[in-house]
Amino acid sequence: MSEQAFQDCYPDELSHCYGCGRNNKEGHQLKSFWNGDETIAHYTPKPEHMAVPGFVYGGLIASIIDCHGTGSAAAIAYKNAGRAMDTSPPLRFVTASLKVDYKAPTPQGTVLELRGRFTEVKERKVCVEIDLCANNVVCAKGYIVAVMMPDSMDPNT
Amino acid sequence: MSEQAFQDCYPDELSHCYGCGRNNKEGHQLKSFWNGDETIAHYTPKPEHMAVPGFVYGGLIASIIDCHGTGSAAAIAYKNAGRAMDTSPPLRFVTASLKVDYKAPTPQGTVLELRGRFTEVKERKVCVEIDLCANNVVCAKGYIVAVMMPDSMDPNT
Repeated sequence: MSEQAFQDCYPDELSHCYGCGRNNKEGHQLKSFWNGDETIAHYTPKPEHMAVPGFVYGGLIASIIDCHGTGSAAAIAYKNAGRAMDTSPPLRFVTASLKVDYKAPTPQGTVLELRGRFTEVKERKVCVEIDLCANNVVCAKGYIVAVMMPDSMDPNT
Repeated sequence: MSEQAFQDCYPDELSHCYGCGRNNKEGHQLKSFWNGDETIAHYTPKPEHMAVPGFVYGGLIASIIDCHGTGSAAAIAYKNAGRAMDTSPPLRFVTASLKVDYKAPTPQGTVLELRGRFTEVKERKVCVEIDLCANNVVCAKGYIVAVMMPDSMDPNT
């Protein structure tokens, strides 16, 4: 596993996301890393992130899959450009489409593992499949289509 | 628009969801209603629910679409059974699959409107299409497959 999280390489002005921004103190602050050709992240939901007592609510699952997907897309874009992730100009992706299949109830009180695999990589479009596991059981499968951030959302422009 | 929110009819033990449970003090407490043959909900994201400054993060959008979808599924199930929503045994749905297409950046600082339309209604499976609008612009389209809650998640069993 690589040592620096993808999200910790984003410039400050792109680090406010509730799901993964290091500058969002109230948010989830998801951290994603390389793990061979895959990407990996771990997150432990808070007690209030429940659907019913004992199980994680679906919105949290969708949220961390989403942020792991866009982070993974940025990481492969930098990798293919032969650039370190903390170099400018930033290569930042947003979600065009997110699909989550909920395979099994996701238990609370345990760390969740997300593993991302790239299924399509173009310069401005990256598709990632993500397994979300708890206790080595796949509880949800995510599919994300990420596209280069439009200028209209970029606080640098 | 009907007067009582779907989620306010759920029994106490099924009202802990972070997205829509009235007993989850930290959560979003989404409230969904009938609006003719459609369902409707309104939600104003908090300032911290950002992707980048000025725009709502995708996980929040997925979360409220998800909870509006499962709430809508419960509502049509009660309606088709000829029962009021606050009667027992509860008819409660969970998400089998959620898809969100992000059509335009969702601005912060304005109320979001969710409108649900039923595309398939069976006794144990309900499909709902949901438009999420800000300032009358469709910013995201959601598609949810909701299924009757499995006994393994039901705190009543």
